Amino acid sequence: MLKVKIIEHTPNPEALVSNAARLCYSDLGIDDLFNKYTDKQNQKMIDKLMNLKHESPIEHVSFTFGVEGISRTLSHQLVRHRIASYSQQSQRYVKLNQFEYVIPPSIDSNKYLKALYIQQMAVTQSAYNVLVRDLIASGKSEKEAIEDARYVFPNSCETKLVFTMNARTLMNFFKLRSCNRAQWEIRELSDEMLRQVKKIAPNLFKYVGANCMFGKCSEGKMTCGIPRRVEEYE
Amino acid sequence: MLKVKIIEHTPNPEALVSNAARLCYSDLGIDDLFNKYTDKQNQKMIDKLMNLKHESPIEHVSFTFGVEGISRTLSHQLVRHRIASYSQQSQRYVKLNQFEYVIPPSIDSNKYLKALYIQQMAVTQSAYNVLVRDLIASGKSEKEAIEDARYVFPNSCETKLVFTMNARTLMNFFKLRSCNRAQWEIRELSDEMLRQVKKIAPNLFKYVGANCMFGKCSEGKMTCGIPRRVEEYE
Amino acid sequence: MLKVKIIEHTPNPEALVSNAARLCYSDLGIDDLFNKYTDKQNQKMIDKLMNLKHESPIEHVSFTFGVEGISRTLSHQLVRHRIASYSQQSQRYVKLNQFEYVIPPSIDSNKYLKALYIQQMAVTQSAYNVLVRDLIASGKSEKEAIEDARYVFPNSCETKLVFTMNARTLMNFFKLRSCNRAQWEIRELSDEMLRQVKKIAPNLFKYVGANCMFGKCSEGKMTCGIPRRVEEYE
Amino acid sequence: MLKVKIIEHTPNPEALVSNAARLCYSDLGIDDLFNKYTDKQNQKMIDKLMNLKHESPIEHVSFTFGVEGISRTLSHQLVRHRIASYSQQSQRYVKLNQFEYVIPPSIDSNKYLKALYIQQMAVTQSAYNVLVRDLIASGKSEKEAIEDARYVFPNSCETKLVFTMNARTLMNFFKLRSCNRAQWEIRELSDEMLRQVKKIAPNLFKYVGANCMFGKCSEGKMTCGIPRRVEEYE
Repeated sequence: MLKVKIIEHTPNPEALVSNAARLCYSDLGIDDLFNKYTDKQNQKMIDKLMNLKHESPIEHVSFTFGVEGISRTLSHQLVRHRIASYSQQSQRYVKLNQFEYVIPPSIDSNKYLKALYIQQMAVTQSAYNVLVRDLIASGKSEKEAIEDARYVFPNSCETKLVFTMNARTLMNFFKLRSCNRAQWEIRELSDEMLRQVKKIAPNLFKYVGANCMFGKCSEGKMTCGIPRRVEEYE
Repeated sequence: MLKVKIIEHTPNPEALVSNAARLCYSDLGIDDLFNKYTDKQNQKMIDKLMNLKHESPIEHVSFTFGVEGISRTLSHQLVRHRIASYSQQSQRYVKLNQFEYVIPPSIDSNKYLKALYIQQMAVTQSAYNVLVRDLIASGKSEKEAIEDARYVFPNSCETKLVFTMNARTLMNFFKLRSCNRAQWEIRELSDEMLRQVKKIAPNLFKYVGANCMFGKCSEGKMTCGIPRRVEEYE
Repeated sequence: MLKVKIIEHTPNPEALVSNAARLCYSDLGIDDLFNKYTDKQNQKMIDKLMNLKHESPIEHVSFTFGVEGISRTLSHQLVRHRIASYSQQSQRYVKLNQFEYVIPPSIDSNKYLKALYIQQMAVTQSAYNVLVRDLIASGKSEKEAIEDARYVFPNSCETKLVFTMNARTLMNFFKLRSCNRAQWEIRELSDEMLRQVKKIAPNLFKYVGANCMFGKCSEGKMTCGIPRRVEEYE
Repeated sequence: MLKVKIIEHTPNPEALVSNAARLCYSDLGIDDLFNKYTDKQNQKMIDKLMNLKHESPIEHVSFTFGVEGISRTLSHQLVRHRIASYSQQSQRYVKLNQFEYVIPPSIDSNKYLKALYIQQMAVTQSAYNVLVRDLIASGKSEKEAIEDARYVFPNSCETKLVFTMNARTLMNFFKLRSCNRAQWEIRELSDEMLRQVKKIAPNLFKYVGANCMFGKCSEGKMTCGIPRRVEEYE
């Protein structure tokens, strides 16, 4: 089961972004700037920044997520977002006596395929167990044994991550990954992350998500034809 | 006058780093991880990470600084640190009716040079004023006028920035910029930043600073010969 | 005088981008991929990538530019592009006995302002010379003297850089900096860079430049109203 | 079978690095700089840079590698190096009718474990085949079928990449991944990459590799105790 949690985030994100942006165009000192504006004024400032695509001030805000119940299929896609920081549970160091796994909905909803899939997972765990045992018996250290035995583990294998992205990386992430053409698993993660950051910084993330949410699909001929809706994130 | 202020930072930085690091080597879930360890244990964990140079988990923590009273000499050096986010007061948008400036101590302490320097600053302000006025009179917009007139402004001209660096960028920054071979102005900034982050995350920044603080200069034949001392940051 | 030169670039840029992109969707081996396709086919592939905004494969190609005759105003804007590598002539190490400088066209075209500007530059060189001489006389090393004396140098002061950007960074650079709302100096640099890379990789840079070149201004109410034209880059 | 090939690289890498470094400290123009120095002088310059840890000029040089015959275990580790560009064969788009796979030497050298491993791979291919067939039969598109069926594929599954790293990223990569404490598979890749870049730029990569090659292990108590030797890369 996908589990997403914001562990920490930059406090007062919308005031920070607004005032950092104002600094560029103002002769006020920093103390004055940071004490002058109301939430309402900050909201307007953020609207203006988003309209002008003046995105650099939003980088000052970052969010650290804890995520569990995702597959290594997903984590391999996730870590391709390079302007971010990742800590991931290691299969080299952690012995998985009963690995958890993700079942794609298309398989989960089909009795025969689900049975086949679960059996395949069981066979894999058995192979891993034998490999670990025999590699240790043959003189390898436990670490050497598990780091080689894990070659049989599937993409479906559950993993856990703590990762940090700033709000600009997040905007790009949501645009790409909340698109219906992203795979369902990373889309579910992206959608849930977006729901959670919207609670913390509603103005900052008001215009964020797949392009289709704002009336313009970017997938050309590959379009899915079914725009995402703002209400999905409320 | 240099003025440095931490505007925001990731809350609970040392717990975050410790638990993100533990996740890599543990089969615990994220909630369990983040509720299990004491401050003392986190301190030990951070010591271990720093000893092993396992630096990636410290990236989860970031600090946003507001800085005033620095020259554009310094800001040009500062923004060369690329894994960071900057918002800087713009000379294209902000008209400087009386620009502030930084005086290097070597000049400030010499009566004749100081007089020469101050006079040079005054002459520059006058030239700027005439250029702005006449460019506007010749049909330019105010923005066009000030963005061209500013070509006369000196490196000494005061600037303000809000910038965000994660703790790993900061470690590299302090190593390079708290070194006596860095220029005095960015070294003063670096020293003050280090003092302030040490108050917030003393364990995380315990082993941080110029290499000489820890017994090994990295400047080879160019060494200044005068190691920085931990006490300078207390 | 602005001088721009491509010193080195990744050889065969369009074949590289095309085949790297194909690898994602193909079961061919790398040797087969890289020997199979004609220039015509690569051109089509690049058109397709640009239409789909599949930009990551263009990162494999990078260009190293040598640039002279630009002001430090420009270089301060340039180095804010963080996904790039810069080597810049240092005012800390290089003593400027007669600094070169850039004159903004708005000033150059006005007899009185030009005279004022040139005089201001001369006054500045004199101040620098005295500062260097007297700081050395007061016991500073030459390096210490010039790194402090340079605080009087203006933004207009000429600088030289060698910098490397990959094609994806360049696309973003051209979009922002060939826009009429960028300052004239960095726009001239951007325009000249674009002209030169178009000669080397015409297909890769066919759809690149300010958004207005392709019918859509991104500046909203701030629009200049005068779209850039493809012919300007031929 | 691991296959590594340098597809393209920045031409004249050592001259480029040397002259970019010289620019910082020289008042010469770019044309003069790039025509003045001999290979011998460039070699000395690079030695000097490496001694002073003045690493930024080496970023101007980049190498594009084509790699085949590696597992997705390895590619998941590889893409964690973020200052680099990756194009990877997609399991979402490429149907693998008979997936290739990597066998860890510890398993390959053990008759029973090898048999178990090969059988496990065969079972996995069968499960994938059935999943793809039945998902299509149930109304999914081929793409939807293969992107879900691939959840059973193992870490051992062969993948292909084209990736580009600059020389500074490579130095860090070799330091970490040619260490005996890296896993054997990424170490073999790293070693082979290092051998190949040393042929192209022998001076640039002379002081590069695991720290132990130069007399100082960085793994503390975790040391393997068996230093890598320069001769391994000749």
